[in-house]
Amino acid sequence: MNFTIRHARSCDCEHIMRLIMELAVYENMSEQVKITSKELERDGFSNHTFFKCLVAEVPEEHQTKEGHTIVGYCLYFYTYSTWEGCVIYMEDLYVMPEFRGNGIGKAMMCRIAQIGRQSECVRLQFSVLNWNKPSIEFYKSHGALDLTEKEGWHAMRFEVAAMEKLAQMTGATEHKNS
Amino acid sequence: MNFTIRHARSCDCEHIMRLIMELAVYENMSEQVKITSKELERDGFSNHTFFKCLVAEVPEEHQTKEGHTIVGYCLYFYTYSTWEGCVIYMEDLYVMPEFRGNGIGKAMMCRIAQIGRQSECVRLQFSVLNWNKPSIEFYKSHGALDLTEKEGWHAMRFEVAAMEKLAQMTGATEHKNS
Repeated sequence: MNFTIRHARSCDCEHIMRLIMELAVYENMSEQVKITSKELERDGFSNHTFFKCLVAEVPEEHQTKEGHTIVGYCLYFYTYSTWEGCVIYMEDLYVMPEFRGNGIGKAMMCRIAQIGRQSECVRLQFSVLNWNKPSIEFYKSHGALDLTEKEGWHAMRFEVAAMEKLAQMTGATEHKNS
Repeated sequence: MNFTIRHARSCDCEHIMRLIMELAVYENMSEQVKITSKELERDGFSNHTFFKCLVAEVPEEHQTKEGHTIVGYCLYFYTYSTWEGCVIYMEDLYVMPEFRGNGIGKAMMCRIAQIGRQSECVRLQFSVLNWNKPSIEFYKSHGALDLTEKEGWHAMRFEVAAMEKLAQMTGATEHKNS
């Protein structure tokens, strides 16, 4: 099957949003999705952007029964390692189930690796859920290391309420303007 | 003990580099540190910056026996969640052992939470090593969630050699310009 990998445009956000939701449903975490396509437009396609995104598009003759031709996406941004320097971070990589097995996911991952190397990134990082064995095997077969398994790294998070509490602590305020 | 938390300047990079190395030694991973203070200057203080950094400074009367007054740092950047939006990511938080117990680490963490909320970030994320129990307890006592424990997230990485191999795959090249 022919397909095209290209950089997302602002007008693709509704489709990216549709695929974000599909991925979250697959990960059994759809209740955590709070974002809207309008926010994606603002955060990815305005003056100050927080991410970049690739989309995978198929020709019209292969469109889904709902008429969609955008069948996959890969959202990424740059982070930094104080040990090695610039890192490209793949936040999401998703292909609709009916379009899998055509090399679309692999082609997007390869593009991210190319973009990363062109930007002198020395790592391509991402996260997976430990029960998602097919994905883990796919990534490992291409040389990915599981850092949680190998070195014991855990992902930690403060959510809004905890952030607000921290932000209001005296320790921070006292030294805010010093 | 008095101390000041302020944004790092280009001329602080040698001190930040010294502290990055101290933290890596503490984490038993000093052999992974490839970066230099010149690269930190370029990557954090030029036109296109990949990170921001706070430093903790003590008055001269409290300087270390080597004469240092910069005794801690917190390096951060912005990432993005496709479920919730903007995220502030704390890559490193470190205070020299002899200056711990004065609230310096907590003050830096509070500042990051403030900066994050001012930038409308809905999460403050970071990673810890699973054997680093004092740090995990410290973060959890302030409301941090361990996402690896709770949801099963694993941190994954392609390093340079694997990235190069991916980047050269036909799948990606074929669709590069389409």
